[in-house]
Amino acid sequence: MSEAVFGSKVLERLWGDPERRVARAFSIEDLRLIAKRRIPRVCFDFVDGASEDEVTMGLNRRGFEELTFRPRYLVDVAKRDLSTEVCGTPISLPVMFGPTGLTRIVSANAEVDAARAAAAAGTVYCPSTATSTSMEHIAAANGGGSRWFQLYLWRDREVYESFVRRAQGAGYEGLVVTVDVPIAGKRERDYRNGFTLPLRLPLRQRIEAARHLEWIWGYLTGPPLTFANLAEEGFGDDAALLGQMVNKELTTASSTYQDLRSLREIWPGKLLVKGTMSVADAEQAVACGVDGIIVSNHGGRQLDGLPATIDVLPSIVAAVGDRVEVLLDSGIRRGSDVVKALALGAKAVLIGRPYLWGLAAGGQYGAARALEILREEIDLCLAMIGCDSVRNLDPSVIEYRPGHRFASQQPPMAEAGRA
Amino acid sequence: MSEAVFGSKVLERLWGDPERRVARAFSIEDLRLIAKRRIPRVCFDFVDGASEDEVTMGLNRRGFEELTFRPRYLVDVAKRDLSTEVCGTPISLPVMFGPTGLTRIVSANAEVDAARAAAAAGTVYCPSTATSTSMEHIAAANGGGSRWFQLYLWRDREVYESFVRRAQGAGYEGLVVTVDVPIAGKRERDYRNGFTLPLRLPLRQRIEAARHLEWIWGYLTGPPLTFANLAEEGFGDDAALLGQMVNKELTTASSTYQDLRSLREIWPGKLLVKGTMSVADAEQAVACGVDGIIVSNHGGRQLDGLPATIDVLPSIVAAVGDRVEVLLDSGIRRGSDVVKALALGAKAVLIGRPYLWGLAAGGQYGAARALEILREEIDLCLAMIGCDSVRNLDPSVIEYRPGHRFASQQPPMAEAGRA
Amino acid sequence: MSEAVFGSKVLERLWGDPERRVARAFSIEDLRLIAKRRIPRVCFDFVDGASEDEVTMGLNRRGFEELTFRPRYLVDVAKRDLSTEVCGTPISLPVMFGPTGLTRIVSANAEVDAARAAAAAGTVYCPSTATSTSMEHIAAANGGGSRWFQLYLWRDREVYESFVRRAQGAGYEGLVVTVDVPIAGKRERDYRNGFTLPLRLPLRQRIEAARHLEWIWGYLTGPPLTFANLAEEGFGDDAALLGQMVNKELTTASSTYQDLRSLREIWPGKLLVKGTMSVADAEQAVACGVDGIIVSNHGGRQLDGLPATIDVLPSIVAAVGDRVEVLLDSGIRRGSDVVKALALGAKAVLIGRPYLWGLAAGGQYGAARALEILREEIDLCLAMIGCDSVRNLDPSVIEYRPGHRFASQQPPMAEAGRA
Amino acid sequence: MSEAVFGSKVLERLWGDPERRVARAFSIEDLRLIAKRRIPRVCFDFVDGASEDEVTMGLNRRGFEELTFRPRYLVDVAKRDLSTEVCGTPISLPVMFGPTGLTRIVSANAEVDAARAAAAAGTVYCPSTATSTSMEHIAAANGGGSRWFQLYLWRDREVYESFVRRAQGAGYEGLVVTVDVPIAGKRERDYRNGFTLPLRLPLRQRIEAARHLEWIWGYLTGPPLTFANLAEEGFGDDAALLGQMVNKELTTASSTYQDLRSLREIWPGKLLVKGTMSVADAEQAVACGVDGIIVSNHGGRQLDGLPATIDVLPSIVAAVGDRVEVLLDSGIRRGSDVVKALALGAKAVLIGRPYLWGLAAGGQYGAARALEILREEIDLCLAMIGCDSVRNLDPSVIEYRPGHRFASQQPPMAEAGRA
Repeated sequence: MSEAVFGSKVLERLWGDPERRVARAFSIEDLRLIAKRRIPRVCFDFVDGASEDEVTMGLNRRGFEELTFRPRYLVDVAKRDLSTEVCGTPISLPVMFGPTGLTRIVSANAEVDAARAAAAAGTVYCPSTATSTSMEHIAAANGGGSRWFQLYLWRDREVYESFVRRAQGAGYEGLVVTVDVPIAGKRERDYRNGFTLPLRLPLRQRIEAARHLEWIWGYLTGPPLTFANLAEEGFGDDAALLGQMVNKELTTASSTYQDLRSLREIWPGKLLVKGTMSVADAEQAVACGVDGIIVSNHGGRQLDGLPATIDVLPSIVAAVGDRVEVLLDSGIRRGSDVVKALALGAKAVLIGRPYLWGLAAGGQYGAARALEILREEIDLCLAMIGCDSVRNLDPSVIEYRPGHRFASQQPPMAEAGRA
Repeated sequence: MSEAVFGSKVLERLWGDPERRVARAFSIEDLRLIAKRRIPRVCFDFVDGASEDEVTMGLNRRGFEELTFRPRYLVDVAKRDLSTEVCGTPISLPVMFGPTGLTRIVSANAEVDAARAAAAAGTVYCPSTATSTSMEHIAAANGGGSRWFQLYLWRDREVYESFVRRAQGAGYEGLVVTVDVPIAGKRERDYRNGFTLPLRLPLRQRIEAARHLEWIWGYLTGPPLTFANLAEEGFGDDAALLGQMVNKELTTASSTYQDLRSLREIWPGKLLVKGTMSVADAEQAVACGVDGIIVSNHGGRQLDGLPATIDVLPSIVAAVGDRVEVLLDSGIRRGSDVVKALALGAKAVLIGRPYLWGLAAGGQYGAARALEILREEIDLCLAMIGCDSVRNLDPSVIEYRPGHRFASQQPPMAEAGRA
Repeated sequence: MSEAVFGSKVLERLWGDPERRVARAFSIEDLRLIAKRRIPRVCFDFVDGASEDEVTMGLNRRGFEELTFRPRYLVDVAKRDLSTEVCGTPISLPVMFGPTGLTRIVSANAEVDAARAAAAAGTVYCPSTATSTSMEHIAAANGGGSRWFQLYLWRDREVYESFVRRAQGAGYEGLVVTVDVPIAGKRERDYRNGFTLPLRLPLRQRIEAARHLEWIWGYLTGPPLTFANLAEEGFGDDAALLGQMVNKELTTASSTYQDLRSLREIWPGKLLVKGTMSVADAEQAVACGVDGIIVSNHGGRQLDGLPATIDVLPSIVAAVGDRVEVLLDSGIRRGSDVVKALALGAKAVLIGRPYLWGLAAGGQYGAARALEILREEIDLCLAMIGCDSVRNLDPSVIEYRPGHRFASQQPPMAEAGRA
Repeated sequence: MSEAVFGSKVLERLWGDPERRVARAFSIEDLRLIAKRRIPRVCFDFVDGASEDEVTMGLNRRGFEELTFRPRYLVDVAKRDLSTEVCGTPISLPVMFGPTGLTRIVSANAEVDAARAAAAAGTVYCPSTATSTSMEHIAAANGGGSRWFQLYLWRDREVYESFVRRAQGAGYEGLVVTVDVPIAGKRERDYRNGFTLPLRLPLRQRIEAARHLEWIWGYLTGPPLTFANLAEEGFGDDAALLGQMVNKELTTASSTYQDLRSLREIWPGKLLVKGTMSVADAEQAVACGVDGIIVSNHGGRQLDGLPATIDVLPSIVAAVGDRVEVLLDSGIRRGSDVVKALALGAKAVLIGRPYLWGLAAGGQYGAARALEILREEIDLCLAMIGCDSVRNLDPSVIEYRPGHRFASQQPPMAEAGRA
């Protein structure tokens, strides 16, 4: 028995078996509650929180909850197919791991674990630029899996040209350009917790953190919390870099669609923009030659006051859905949310917090569990609305309650169009 | 004095007189609270809970609460008539006992008690396939009462052919085909409580259960918790069967309206489908020759995200109400809910939780009390809206508040049409 | 110093000066809280509660709260006039004391105190039939004040003919026929408290009541809790009578508009119906020759599920407002509620709970305080919307928020019509 | 080291450094919570509370929260310009200090501190007539800053003529005439706290106040709580004056637009009315020659039942926005609220409670911090909606959710109109 394996056995005794632990989570909310118990408050809040009054985060949930289904029964749904394709990449379920910054703080090998979980589940992992593991190491962990890479439009053009070369070299099939961070959002939980980079916690938070021995062990023994991708670009002293990164000094609020067009010219793979919340922006992105648009409000973490993504999805699909693929993120907590998004025209969804809570709850097992929960719930939902494949979902599965704010916009029902 | 009678007198001393106990319940909610105190949490939650976030269960209540009445006064309502007829069966009030699985867990002789209470009250009892008492024994207890039988569309065609023969033999007048269980709903309270069949509770639940001596006594001394109907079909080992039943392996997600049509050919009595939530499904069922349609979302226990039944009732009534009888269940807690459903076109309603809470609170007395409470409330409501018979209810008794989501759909008021 | 005066001085020392006590109430809610502390729970709940789930009671409040004002400033409102006239009776403010049964249970001389407070304030007192003080004694206490008398349509025609003669003899100017009690409402707080007549409380309630010495003193030393008006009609044993009264056996669910027409023929004074909640009923009452219609849902104490009175007022005013006077009750808690009701066409409002809480809090002083609070609030509201008289209120003072359920019904604004 | 400086150093030790204290406030709500801890309840409630049931105060918040943004990304927003001009006065951000009475009670040198903070931040300070510091002293503290003066329309015409002369002399550029106080609002928190002038607190409040030593020190050592402006007008005994002032005996409910017209004739500077909540009033004010209209419901402190200011703003802008400048106050708590108000046509906003909480939390530092927080939030919001200047905001940045009550009123989108 190797030392590492032996060590992990010992720790398992100490902290409990992560696989069994996450198996007791029946819902994403269960994973969240396990995560809340297991990691320091400052880390949990970084993931769990949103900006200012967290109004948008709440709207995301309300948007899904206000939509109801129009089910069809006595349809042969003995076999349900969850697989689909996004921008040419086949996925085994319409849920991908979206980009999340500073993921390292939730568990010791967060990005490697996420890369493995996604590959094993047959879906895409899209790491953020701001990972503690370099994109090349993530690619190695991801192995035969599919991966996309998230990019900001950097002030220094050479930086993203280098990223493009590296992404190509490491087998990333798509680039996801985040457009909704001209400036960092105001996340007040982080301010109150004294969350800075590197972590420099006030006494109260230190005491709270001290209760989380497993997390501390992982933090001390795992890879350092850095921006590995940037370090490889030759950026200097880490601490200063982190500060700059967080303050977006390296990226720029002066980026325009011209920069997107330039990127399109040098990147041969699939190109997507993430953060689009208006028809006008969607049209401009399409004009720049993107392959996909991710309707996103950054999980409510950027501008508080944005509407729910599910509320703006239909108009964007109506405008550009015939030319590019439209994806969605922000607020997905249930398989039925995924079904609703697909019914209204999304090709697939990305999740953030759900797999981060999984990582915090049980590393790779937890990230895998998040996908497994959603997979089961999507499958259940398909069976119960009478649809045999996620590719057959359309607005006819939605029952717009009289008075629902979309009721008057309801696309003509194509009832015959389903199985 | 027979031993049994003597024994029951002794127990009455121990547990209290069930008849007096339920007489102190003034509302269905009161019965619920008594039930909550008297049976183990795991059993209470099985009845009380719904699937996932229990959103649909909440919508059912909100649907009723948002409807208000337009009362008429100084109408002669000295005599109010609650009797009506459903699919040819006369009932003394427009409320029936709907099918509920595993009813045995709430009290020792649950199904026999329910059968007696329904017969005594002059209404229909529709036991589930999944009873611990065979349909023949239930029929015997039901005596001169009216009864329907609930059926799934079984994978094995011979099974339901046998059920059809047995149902005929035992005097069941109607068959109710449940269509909304292609797969079991995700009831997370049960998952968390460790509710499995046979009951295999975690320690925490065992300790909690130990406080409920009367329930334990009934559980140990009453008939075993089995699927009696299936046992008689020659299905083998009980434990395995229960598992299969719960996982719906015996029934099938591949059933179609063709199966319903086949059933129609071999069943001479009344045929109803239960679970219809769309006009399209209602049309298809009518085309298969059903006599009635039960608008139901399974009390919110199957797909979470379905709308309230009272919200979809009007469109289904408008589509097929002139050809078949439309019934409704899910969320009935007050006599006024029954009146609202009838006003919008339902012929009668079925209840589930209300009589289960009654059974848990006081066996047959409790089930009878549930009907008695609703009977009094319906009677009161009729008097106060100025209607002398449930058969005279129509949409004119509903006051659509300006802004109510049905306001624009309001059927033309037939004000003159009432007494 | 007379014995009585001396006694009251002693008691004042014991219980505190009622005048000073109620002076510390700044709102109707304050009076309610004082009442809650001072009288037994069973009595407080009888006044405070409503039927079943108390949904209608809540809608009454929401109806007012959802209406907002469109104020006009720099209008000369140095003098505001709150006086108006209802059915020929001048009143100093548009608020009257409506009929409330069993008023005696809140304080020792409830009806006499109310009669005096109303007379002193220059408004109408309309005692219920179900008072413990005979209508003649109440008339004596009311003195030069204006009074109406509330009547049910009795099963026994001679009874109300006698009431008509007595009302005339005792100087009652109006008769108010309650039409919304074909049967008693289901007030579950009373059921749970064991509230019966005569009071026969369970132990728990007795213990609770024992803490309220002042109330007990008043209950024991004051006039007995009877139905004095009926006793004078020669009805026999009190206890039985009370039971019959409460169960409405003496009145009848078979009354029709024909009975109202008959009453109209023998009653020379003003005639009003109370409880009308539909245009159709309003039309029928007008056809019977009534002088006024009181839109009321009995404070939510009869049929739970009725809409807010302020929500149905506009359509009734539109239908019959040019032929009879329309009044309103149920849910009035603020002067601004009164202003809203008048703006939408009510001539005045009646209050129930507010003055009962006043009586419980401080007898006549408390009833007077309730009127005083509302008078001040109406005055304040007039000044702040820029209207100099309650007689000049019209819908133009209401700002229908876009999306308010009445917005589309808004009568054409007569902006120029105001001062 | 001067004595004063030494003293303040000592006190700083005792009470803590106010600058560092307010630096830990990340939002206006944070300032509020610090204020709540630091000053007596009676003073906090005077600022924090509103009239009657505080419904309007709640509507103000809901009005802002229900509006969502339509962001545009990849727009060059590297430079954002928050400066604008109101009625000819340039301001560095579209937020001004509005008039607040009795400001002295929150901190020792409240008005002087506010005047300095506003001048330092480059915005307007508009002190109330009811300050404890004379308008001349405030002007001195304000120095080179811009200032307006708030005025009631006094019963005694000579009084406001004198004020006009003094305002001119002291360099006030604008006069703000408050029109929504024909009578004082009913602020029940103050009634309950026994808040009178001069402060005469009940025992319970005295004990509570005793815990706030810093506030007591400031109250005893600072300038007296008087109406300095009135004292200089030769009004006599202070205590009596305060009472009269509060009861508005000195001002008048009989003022009309004629008085406004007279004022216009004698005041050469900018003239604004504050409190307008209807199109009709706005039209009349414009006809009187005002330069600006402040849409205000007095923070919910006058008539409870007024709609949110953001809800009435669009119709007033549509009616008179091309002839005068429209400003807004009431309910501003976030930079995004300011952006929403400007997008719907306001030129700038005024704040009240936010800077009073700042003063209570840390004197001049706190008032400055309130502006700093809003400045940062406005800047952030501009960047994230893709707008480079507050002067370029228009309704196209608002995403009316389908079903929002304004949706049907949405002005035609001028999407192309933005950068």
